[in-house]
Amino acid sequence: MLEKTTRVNFLFDFYQSLLTPKQRNYMELYFLEDYSLGEISETFDVSRQAVYDNIRRTEMMLEEYEKKLLLYYKFSKRQKLLEMMSQSLEESDPFRSYIDELRELE
Amino acid sequence: MLEKTTRVNFLFDFYQSLLTPKQRNYMELYFLEDYSLGEISETFDVSRQAVYDNIRRTEMMLEEYEKKLLLYYKFSKRQKLLEMMSQSLEESDPFRSYIDELRELE
Repeated sequence: MLEKTTRVNFLFDFYQSLLTPKQRNYMELYFLEDYSLGEISETFDVSRQAVYDNIRRTEMMLEEYEKKLLLYYKFSKRQKLLEMMSQSLEESDPFRSYIDELRELE
Repeated sequence: MLEKTTRVNFLFDFYQSLLTPKQRNYMELYFLEDYSLGEISETFDVSRQAVYDNIRRTEMMLEEYEKKLLLYYKFSKRQKLLEMMSQSLEESDPFRSYIDELRELE
């Protein structure tokens, strides 16, 4: 069975525009709408095996794109940096409390 | 004639991993090394027209990728934001001068 992972969801998010409409359809139903392979094969009137093969091939394509463009990797890095910046900004807020203390001394 | 633009250079930078080795070769020589179409056609022993067609097709592919993934567009936006942040950081430096003034009053 294929594993429905967060990673694939992210990769799909970044690279779905490079997929064919059919690939996008299967991936959306399977990973976002949580359809089973059987339900997808019924919906499109194709064999369960065909759906499985298509989804697995698409997953490999997504990993291939990621290897080449690193969009998910860079996104994760940026998210971490933004979080650190945001945190460091909060920490620099003590300035305000010093000003208040200085005021109180007047 | 093809125009050797900054835009194509950027797009090539972002999407070159998605091109074939031949496409990458021609693009590098033409846009980065500033070879003429004639020089490239001599180097690879193909017609000038073939080189021209290949480069023009590749340019269109790059624009197609950009339309789908917007990497150059997002990069430009991020660059502007980073510049603004950097500037705003410099502007917040007056804090130091206030502290100095406060010190002098002691």
